[in-house]
Amino acid sequence: MNFCYDCGSKLEKRIPDGDNLERDCCTECDSIHYTNPKVIVGTIPTKDNKVLLCKRAIQPRYGLWTLPAGFLENGETIEEGAFRETKEETNTEVKMGNLYAIFNIPQINQVYMLHLAEVIHEDYGKTSESLEVEFFAEKDIPWEELAFPFVPTTLKNFFKDSKKGEYPLRTQIIERKPR
Amino acid sequence: MNFCYDCGSKLEKRIPDGDNLERDCCTECDSIHYTNPKVIVGTIPTKDNKVLLCKRAIQPRYGLWTLPAGFLENGETIEEGAFRETKEETNTEVKMGNLYAIFNIPQINQVYMLHLAEVIHEDYGKTSESLEVEFFAEKDIPWEELAFPFVPTTLKNFFKDSKKGEYPLRTQIIERKPR
Repeated sequence: MNFCYDCGSKLEKRIPDGDNLERDCCTECDSIHYTNPKVIVGTIPTKDNKVLLCKRAIQPRYGLWTLPAGFLENGETIEEGAFRETKEETNTEVKMGNLYAIFNIPQINQVYMLHLAEVIHEDYGKTSESLEVEFFAEKDIPWEELAFPFVPTTLKNFFKDSKKGEYPLRTQIIERKPR
Repeated sequence: MNFCYDCGSKLEKRIPDGDNLERDCCTECDSIHYTNPKVIVGTIPTKDNKVLLCKRAIQPRYGLWTLPAGFLENGETIEEGAFRETKEETNTEVKMGNLYAIFNIPQINQVYMLHLAEVIHEDYGKTSESLEVEFFAEKDIPWEELAFPFVPTTLKNFFKDSKKGEYPLRTQIIERKPR
């Protein structure tokens, strides 16, 4: 950040009164510009113990496989966001299940929140965000072509838990290099 | 938002290519400025079935009682943020427990994530953010003087669950008037 988005003046980094962290503060008006972690919401869409994965049609990680997920938008709940992202990336409206995984990725200021979901319609398929959308059984997962670290971690947990039929909430920290 | 924080030029609201929501886009450079919900992290700090509450020394809701909570900062995990906020508002370092409550407040673009926590030291007390810090048994909670809607909701759930000694994750939507 270089300029104040309220008045367009130069910003400076300083600790505001009553705070204990440096913030982007305007040199002309009173604005303080906070930046905070973002929430990524998504699902593990399944049917008959197979998981629906999407081959990314967008950067980053174009052409690699992922679980449907994206940034939570203003005005929506975590569950609504996860449902919307799943529809945008797989073209199908899933039946939402419980919250299953929370990943903290503090190096890139992200929190992932993934719900279980059941694929209940046959209309899944590619979208503007996905080159292909396909079901994979555990033995067929393209482990070497997964897009982000949260994907293999989630899939391994999911298939392990599916053998017991119990899906406790899993909270984990993922280490990433800072951007 | 009025001005681009990258180049200081005027912003306009439009839907960028490949997106489906209006964003603040710079009229001069390529910057798109996204705003997303913020995460509030905190704890329910307890000892002997009493809850440690803080009387707010800052606006909003100055002088009302709350559970320690605040914005998750860049670079920290949910648990680290909850621990830090608890220390900042109660002056004590708690023993962190499980994630207990998630509140979606979509009208004000907030997601609350609250952990159980155990007060294990005797050094709790007021801070620059809290006028008073006190333990309350269920019958003594100042129900009419609680700061935010998430506080009574969390306390009611907590005392109900404490009777069974089981604290399942509770996810809820709280309705608030938009700012």
